[in-house]
Amino acid sequence: MNARETLYAGKNGRLQIGGVDVKDLASLYGTPLYVFDKAHIKKVCETFAESLNKYYGKGKIFYASKAFCCKETYRIVKEAGLGADVVSAGEIFTALSAGTDAKNLCFHGNNKSYSDLEYAVKSGVGYIVIDAVSEIDDLEEICAKLKVKQRVLLRVNPGVEAHTHHYIQTAKPDSKFGFSIENGDADKAVKNLVAKSFVDFCGLHCHIGSQIFEKTSFLLAVDKMTDYYKKVSEDFGAKLSVLNLGGGFGIYYTETDPKFGCEDYAEYIKSICEKLCECLAQKDVEKPYLIFEPGRAIVGEAGITLYTAGRIKNITGLKNYISVNGGMFENPRFALYQAKYTVLAAERLNDKPDTVYTVAGKCCESGDVIAENVNLPKMREGELIAVLSTGAYNYSMASNYNRNFVPPVVMVEDGKSYLAVKGQTFEDLVRNDL
Amino acid sequence: MNARETLYAGKNGRLQIGGVDVKDLASLYGTPLYVFDKAHIKKVCETFAESLNKYYGKGKIFYASKAFCCKETYRIVKEAGLGADVVSAGEIFTALSAGTDAKNLCFHGNNKSYSDLEYAVKSGVGYIVIDAVSEIDDLEEICAKLKVKQRVLLRVNPGVEAHTHHYIQTAKPDSKFGFSIENGDADKAVKNLVAKSFVDFCGLHCHIGSQIFEKTSFLLAVDKMTDYYKKVSEDFGAKLSVLNLGGGFGIYYTETDPKFGCEDYAEYIKSICEKLCECLAQKDVEKPYLIFEPGRAIVGEAGITLYTAGRIKNITGLKNYISVNGGMFENPRFALYQAKYTVLAAERLNDKPDTVYTVAGKCCESGDVIAENVNLPKMREGELIAVLSTGAYNYSMASNYNRNFVPPVVMVEDGKSYLAVKGQTFEDLVRNDL
Repeated sequence: MNARETLYAGKNGRLQIGGVDVKDLASLYGTPLYVFDKAHIKKVCETFAESLNKYYGKGKIFYASKAFCCKETYRIVKEAGLGADVVSAGEIFTALSAGTDAKNLCFHGNNKSYSDLEYAVKSGVGYIVIDAVSEIDDLEEICAKLKVKQRVLLRVNPGVEAHTHHYIQTAKPDSKFGFSIENGDADKAVKNLVAKSFVDFCGLHCHIGSQIFEKTSFLLAVDKMTDYYKKVSEDFGAKLSVLNLGGGFGIYYTETDPKFGCEDYAEYIKSICEKLCECLAQKDVEKPYLIFEPGRAIVGEAGITLYTAGRIKNITGLKNYISVNGGMFENPRFALYQAKYTVLAAERLNDKPDTVYTVAGKCCESGDVIAENVNLPKMREGELIAVLSTGAYNYSMASNYNRNFVPPVVMVEDGKSYLAVKGQTFEDLVRNDL
Repeated sequence: MNARETLYAGKNGRLQIGGVDVKDLASLYGTPLYVFDKAHIKKVCETFAESLNKYYGKGKIFYASKAFCCKETYRIVKEAGLGADVVSAGEIFTALSAGTDAKNLCFHGNNKSYSDLEYAVKSGVGYIVIDAVSEIDDLEEICAKLKVKQRVLLRVNPGVEAHTHHYIQTAKPDSKFGFSIENGDADKAVKNLVAKSFVDFCGLHCHIGSQIFEKTSFLLAVDKMTDYYKKVSEDFGAKLSVLNLGGGFGIYYTETDPKFGCEDYAEYIKSICEKLCECLAQKDVEKPYLIFEPGRAIVGEAGITLYTAGRIKNITGLKNYISVNGGMFENPRFALYQAKYTVLAAERLNDKPDTVYTVAGKCCESGDVIAENVNLPKMREGELIAVLSTGAYNYSMASNYNRNFVPPVVMVEDGKSYLAVKGQTFEDLVRNDL
């Protein structure tokens, strides 16, 4: 477990999150329960914001809200001085409902519809990231009609694909996103953009991967992006002032991941900013406004899911299953990506983990597993199980599969807790049924 | 495409479902849209029910409602004389809300909680399928308290695992479901069950796999299940009267699957029933009440998803992407299982499919794909795309990922259409947000 000041084993052997005992959280709100360590979210936000300020001085962090989207998250990141990266009209709506200033939103997506774009422009969204040729004409038409200028970035593929511990360089990125620099697709989009009157082409965007720990790929992307930034400014006469380097910073799930703490994120941003300043100086390019879009890094480790241990099955001669009262309806990442998690007997952290379990969900599907081959003390039905680092892409991907309820979301901080999202009820299940 | 009387290309070259033109459906309800061919659902229901009656004469078909669960589905299958297999309190609630008689419900699940069981017993659910040791004691306690007898089946693993075109026999089934016959786990559960007073142990259940086309595995399971049925009755003195052979019947997704029509399901049921009668006669066992639980087979091919083609991306020298206004939030089966679908240019079925596309969803995730390498005519933005055989495990697994809306569900029959589930709105997205 990636222990921190706000996540630790209490003297009673029980997991404490934000100063609250998991047993108390379960009593108050029931299980399954999404618990968020609010202080940790804030700390990571501040780390990114301060590092950008300290090592570069000009820019903003936009929280990639698809990782965990609800009104309360937008409030927390806003309070910490961040904007938000949004990927649908629904995310824009949620952000605005939570009081986010539209100019602090950056709207992404490979298939933003005409009406999505219209909604974004009318809402006053700060940046729209162009991801398809026909978007440019749609947007020009919408802006002309509304008589507004809309700032846009162009999503380009710099030919660097970062993975957890390695990266590849490719001239033909097979992606539904962005325009390849190397094959000339980006140039064509740029020519189209600079010819527009209402679409204000002001910068470039890239996103090189997810769950990235190694730095080289980012530094390489900075080099390629500044090259292209210079080319677009000089060869195509675009007046660029913004560089958005996306997100993808890794988090700790299990022992196979580095324990990447706030100091590591700071170090990471420092390296990128230094490299960027170096490239800009070398290439004689004026310092652009710099944007990063961390999502998972901000909420991933802050989130912990609490379950109640259910039926235990010791298959004679084979293995042990323990079922929890959640599953792929509230955490589909094992089913989707065979994702790995750290699992704890949340009430007995000091007991020896001497038994190997497969932690199964309650859905009627063999693939509904939360984690395989985890070491726990011999478990009893009814006790609490905690799964760590569930803050990203769990609640946001939750469904009503098997007509289970999406669990409630709770924030904890300084020994107190409050509901951020209510749990569903029977009524929610049939609300739209006729 | 697996054409049928109620699914065909109209003279105008457009897809007709249940006598309704897809263009009209899209105009009336918008896209993305889940469309269900009601006549086909009814026809498959009747095929199963009639075949069971004709070739065996004693039993019932229970629709596995996890495949596609909403109030209207329960109404349709009830009308066709079917019961329903339910896997959560939420499914029981939905079924009852739709007017299903509780005695026609069979409640499954590897982790039914105490309160789930209590809810089921109080509701008067016909059968509860025991899937864990501790469930037996919980259920006895609940029934004693409520002074009711509850009929239960025991889920056993006969050691046959069926896959699409092959099967394996295994003495150690690695499954979170059921009790292995071969390793003695089932015997232990039986001993426990026959000692109870309120829990009325009346039969056995098995489920050997999904998307099964070959018969041998089912016939083998029948042999093993009748062996065990006889053993349980004779050696343990249980008064059994029910045999539930589960579901798993395959459907047509793409050209790699057999075109399994209603006549094939009838033939399939016939073979199983004949084998069962033969085994019962050989083993001198009285004819049990026979249950099958098809889910996918009933709704899978009846469901068609309509999309509007969005941004098209021809990556120079590489490939073509066409994005639709849906994605893994409403059809997660590619992301989950790399599932394959038949995709059609729904307004131009007679045009030559001369271009290869990857059909991508609109979610901000590279893995958000609906189908890879499908042949379509050269597509235009704004035209309709139909994806066939989406009736099972699409709506039921739908989420609000990226804060997209779960699309509406429409039933079509005899040239008319009506809403079964309303589409979501912005309000639904933030309904439980505080």
